[in-house]
Amino acid sequence: MTAPHAVPRPRPHPVGARRRAALRALLAEAGLDALLVTDLVNVRYLTGFTGSNAAVLLDARGEEGTVLATDGRYTTQAGAEAPELRLLVERRCAPELLAITTAGRVGFDSAQVTVDAHDALAQAAGAVELVRAPGLVERLRAVKDAAEIDALRLACAAADAALAGAVADGVLAPGRSEREVARELEERMVAAGATGPSFETIVAAGANSAIPHHRPSDAPLAAGDLVTMDFGALVDGYHSDMTRTVLLGPPSPWQEEIYALVDAAAAAGRAALRPGVATSEIDAAARAVITEAGYGEHFVHPVGHGVGLVIHEAPAMSATATATLDAGMTVTVEPGVYLPGRGGVRIEDTLVVTESGADPLTASTRDLVVLG
Amino acid sequence: MTAPHAVPRPRPHPVGARRRAALRALLAEAGLDALLVTDLVNVRYLTGFTGSNAAVLLDARGEEGTVLATDGRYTTQAGAEAPELRLLVERRCAPELLAITTAGRVGFDSAQVTVDAHDALAQAAGAVELVRAPGLVERLRAVKDAAEIDALRLACAAADAALAGAVADGVLAPGRSEREVARELEERMVAAGATGPSFETIVAAGANSAIPHHRPSDAPLAAGDLVTMDFGALVDGYHSDMTRTVLLGPPSPWQEEIYALVDAAAAAGRAALRPGVATSEIDAAARAVITEAGYGEHFVHPVGHGVGLVIHEAPAMSATATATLDAGMTVTVEPGVYLPGRGGVRIEDTLVVTESGADPLTASTRDLVVLG
Repeated sequence: MTAPHAVPRPRPHPVGARRRAALRALLAEAGLDALLVTDLVNVRYLTGFTGSNAAVLLDARGEEGTVLATDGRYTTQAGAEAPELRLLVERRCAPELLAITTAGRVGFDSAQVTVDAHDALAQAAGAVELVRAPGLVERLRAVKDAAEIDALRLACAAADAALAGAVADGVLAPGRSEREVARELEERMVAAGATGPSFETIVAAGANSAIPHHRPSDAPLAAGDLVTMDFGALVDGYHSDMTRTVLLGPPSPWQEEIYALVDAAAAAGRAALRPGVATSEIDAAARAVITEAGYGEHFVHPVGHGVGLVIHEAPAMSATATATLDAGMTVTVEPGVYLPGRGGVRIEDTLVVTESGADPLTASTRDLVVLG
Repeated sequence: MTAPHAVPRPRPHPVGARRRAALRALLAEAGLDALLVTDLVNVRYLTGFTGSNAAVLLDARGEEGTVLATDGRYTTQAGAEAPELRLLVERRCAPELLAITTAGRVGFDSAQVTVDAHDALAQAAGAVELVRAPGLVERLRAVKDAAEIDALRLACAAADAALAGAVADGVLAPGRSEREVARELEERMVAAGATGPSFETIVAAGANSAIPHHRPSDAPLAAGDLVTMDFGALVDGYHSDMTRTVLLGPPSPWQEEIYALVDAAAAAGRAALRPGVATSEIDAAARAVITEAGYGEHFVHPVGHGVGLVIHEAPAMSATATATLDAGMTVTVEPGVYLPGRGGVRIEDTLVVTESGADPLTASTRDLVVLG
């Protein structure tokens, strides 16, 4: 069995039709007669179909020439999830779609199609001219509609509820293991309505908190530890992403210093979010705070990323990213400072860009929480 | 945060060194001076490194020229998981590895590298000759060593324990939802030592059981339903995969007929497993039983697949597959019959191919279990 993330019931069809119409406008700009959509998340975004083997030939001329392809395992499911689309039942979805299209210039996602898969497309193309067209659906996906933002809001709320419950129930206590805390957060997110975690939960205590992507171990939490929890919930296929760092016991000066520093950097990053701003400016705004304090070398990753049907999606948010923010984009802001062998702090929120700034979807307090 | 599957503590280093040596033998056969390994599962198989951004340049001349690349988030983790390897810290792992190698003919995985990523490699290649070399590491991974089989055995045992517990505790009862049953199975696998499910658990009741990859819904189980559960556990990064179909209440003749048929087909498939046999023969052995009974059109998927660090891996097991079984391969056998609108039966086991046949790693009874 393949293992896609848990996914929701079919989206209402009007959403798919509207998205396909929006994509056709991009095809016109790109001078394409059709787009071969091979990424499963993009297939699902455009059609509502959630099977593990599929492709879509989106015809610029309209729905008539637009075909969803999948294999025999999913015939029934495709009819239920995308009843308005022509269905082609073939295991080799993409080449077979090329073989039946009447379109002339057909774009393919060169950022997703492998070198070998491209060979198969070229062999099936016949008179079709294959044209590189990476990232077109991702451009649409970056700006969320109201239903998508609602799903992200619910996903963020499930993560907030899980953290609040874990704190209230004393889960974050010396003697508990990182793995136990991760499991508690994940179970509590499901209890709060999530279909599951949106990625592998990170719980990093003590010196482990200096490892940005530490994987939870059986090591017990200890008094005085910084405990960084980076986790999220999956709701209706949408991924939330939040990081909080708490302290087990009275803070030492260096812990207070880097917590205040990361908190200020995160605030600076969030404050810079607004339509028209380059995402690299968000990274710069947060990084400047940390660099000016002399900790620049210890902030070793980009400030954030777009988030939605995939945990990392457009827009990119690094110092070298070339994207610009638009209203409706959902992004994370997550600066961190990591002192090898000692510990680290990361504070991350998921936000939606508005006409005038950005609204946080994650609501857990960012004040330093000291437990025990 | 990216979302790889839960992964284990580092493998002992001797395993990685042995695997790299075995890969060098394949490079010699292929006339390659080096292999650029860009698939993260392959990176982890060869090095023990489990970060979400990495590549390895495996030099045919030995460990000296062999380099692991990752980005700054993982510097500490790479030092802990693969201390014996040279480390390159660069966000653009694969192109930067090409830029520093002294190897002449460098293979890349054309089944994994995208068209755009290949452009970046070609630009960085300089004097390096890039050669298509798909699937070399997958060939090694198909044959498991003792430690890998032990991990799969534990993963299968966790799934067996979860099903036995769910049956004993009356979880499979009219009124419970498919989603509740799926959650119970997943929580019980974790309680039995799994780091999580090995894929999105399938629970399909009544008419839904005719949908091979049905996703659990809130629909309640009903008396007389066939309930198909396709699920597995993740242990130390290895995936188990098992399907059982139970019946809620006295069987009707058609249910007994297709259950007995699928049971016989699965037995025929398992009995055909041995070294030297084409995997297409396993599909044929199981399919013949179903076809001869007149249900051939209702067995709509391949008989099985290899399983290990990925839920679907080499060897392929379809009617058109070209692989041959070897001792140490771990595969599933999972025929099914699906009657649209009525219901279906699938019975799946994970087995390890031995010198003389195959041993099942999944132990749950295949007798028709009638509940209530």
